Amino acid sequence: MKGERGLIEKLGRVFGQPPAAVVCGIGDDTAVIAPGGGDYLLWTIDSLIEGVHFDLTYTPLKSLGRKALAVNLSDIAAMGGQPQYALLALGWPPERPLAGVLELARGMQEIAGEFGVALIGGDTVSSPGVLSLSLTVLGRVEPEALLRRDGARVGDEIYVTGPLGQAAAGLEILRRGLARPGNEKSSLVQAFLHPRPQVAAGGVLAKNQLASASIDLSDGVASDLQQICLLSRVGAVVHAANLPIPGPVAEVAALMGREPWDLALRGGEDYQLLFTAPPGQKQVIQRYFRQAGLPEPVCIGEIIPGSGVRLRLHAGEIDISGTGFDHFPESQA
Amino acid sequence: MKGERGLIEKLGRVFGQPPAAVVCGIGDDTAVIAPGGGDYLLWTIDSLIEGVHFDLTYTPLKSLGRKALAVNLSDIAAMGGQPQYALLALGWPPERPLAGVLELARGMQEIAGEFGVALIGGDTVSSPGVLSLSLTVLGRVEPEALLRRDGARVGDEIYVTGPLGQAAAGLEILRRGLARPGNEKSSLVQAFLHPRPQVAAGGVLAKNQLASASIDLSDGVASDLQQICLLSRVGAVVHAANLPIPGPVAEVAALMGREPWDLALRGGEDYQLLFTAPPGQKQVIQRYFRQAGLPEPVCIGEIIPGSGVRLRLHAGEIDISGTGFDHFPESQA
Repeated sequence: MKGERGLIEKLGRVFGQPPAAVVCGIGDDTAVIAPGGGDYLLWTIDSLIEGVHFDLTYTPLKSLGRKALAVNLSDIAAMGGQPQYALLALGWPPERPLAGVLELARGMQEIAGEFGVALIGGDTVSSPGVLSLSLTVLGRVEPEALLRRDGARVGDEIYVTGPLGQAAAGLEILRRGLARPGNEKSSLVQAFLHPRPQVAAGGVLAKNQLASASIDLSDGVASDLQQICLLSRVGAVVHAANLPIPGPVAEVAALMGREPWDLALRGGEDYQLLFTAPPGQKQVIQRYFRQAGLPEPVCIGEIIPGSGVRLRLHAGEIDISGTGFDHFPESQA
Repeated sequence: MKGERGLIEKLGRVFGQPPAAVVCGIGDDTAVIAPGGGDYLLWTIDSLIEGVHFDLTYTPLKSLGRKALAVNLSDIAAMGGQPQYALLALGWPPERPLAGVLELARGMQEIAGEFGVALIGGDTVSSPGVLSLSLTVLGRVEPEALLRRDGARVGDEIYVTGPLGQAAAGLEILRRGLARPGNEKSSLVQAFLHPRPQVAAGGVLAKNQLASASIDLSDGVASDLQQICLLSRVGAVVHAANLPIPGPVAEVAALMGREPWDLALRGGEDYQLLFTAPPGQKQVIQRYFRQAGLPEPVCIGEIIPGSGVRLRLHAGEIDISGTGFDHFPESQA
């Protein structure tokens, strides 16, 4: 297998079989450890590198700090867990004023406070050229509530917890210098700069055991749903007509000469949850979400036998498997 | 306060008071969490960045992998703990062959296997320009065995678990292109490329409650002992005549036009443990180490009232406080 996924598989072979206390190792949103009695530990690390994951010409440092922690909390949310602690490793370019470190930290602390997470340490080093940061987050989940990527079954319905394509559209607006405060597209820029990790939604799914599989949307539905399909050994079909695509996203897609569903499925960085659930549960799921004060999840397709992700359009079906962002698209390692 | 330490203090203020379950937050070798009953969790993150922490012209990728994990295990050792799990975040330059990722991983797996650590996941992204890697490690320690940096008391003796200056001398040999297999200096190169985390030594200190404070020697005795002094609110005097400096280190120091003690105290990267213990315990400590099949620790000085680290030479005393490597020496953030 080529690309990032192939590399991760090869790494898994080098690292070998994990010990029995490791419930999930390489391949899910977080590692899961059973410490022996009580809750499982959820543990994740994510790196953001200037020029790859962010551009400081349109990302304020405080927003970067918020987002860096948010994407880690999103991984914990995808497993149904509650994030608790974070450590930061920061590589800071020596030519950049150090006051910026504190600005970044303030953004991080802002979102940490909102989600009850404690930032309790880390490592700060000088980094020539580009700013890089890695965050590791620990969370917990009750063993029976754990959500995984590999539980989707044929016939299950596929849901997303919120609108698609907003972050990709927001990024395009920033790139084109079209961002203006107060206009209707500012919500798109907000979605890109300040994604909300869906911790509450993951908690509702987990506590009520509503989902058969779950992942957070970092690379886009096409790529992330493909992960669920690969690990669950199933296929999926997505109905273009059912995708929750806000009007402003469609407008930006038109500006870019792309189909709205293309931006929604391949744009990435929405950080909504995508989950599967047995058929016939839609009203139950929607009721639990309403009771929790959360928007109702939207059913966008279903799990089918086979493999790959197909998109159903008026005109027919196309294969969109794994067409999100891949860090190593031509890897043959 | 200036420099890296000043920055860390400011970050600590942004992040605020940690919750009660956090036994040690910012400032020690690892974060320490009391998960509620049973062992404490030890948790660390460290980043290595090409051009700052390593040079691939004389560091094979497999050695880099070994060392990256070793320095994290060393942090766990300094707290008296047993490392258990690791996650890797790798930033890989797209122009570098991806087979190198697996070489790096094999080095990591080698040392993971030696220390009973399971590599259970991570994140691999493309990184323009420089290779960077962050590792986060989880370990555990019995609450009563935990070693900290802030427990040194006036009158305590200061020990190191092994020779000093070898890594700095080894680095110099590599930089000058003097490394030849089989010569007497190859042990220095080994010390630089393949540091041994002192997990067993930390375990002996912890289990038998022999040490009042402990730190691992990453930046050098001058800087790392200064950390113990700062957090314990004491001073220290080191006796140059007692420093365990191997002959080949003194030879390399002469090549460099530096005093042997200068290389030993300021060179860094030895990854021995430095610890303090109440006076009169030397024979007890040495017996425990002998029984564990470990080299006997060497007493290099004592804790005194006041602050700062002083070096006693034949000719008198000099202040060497905090003269190891500082990533942000002129920081005024």
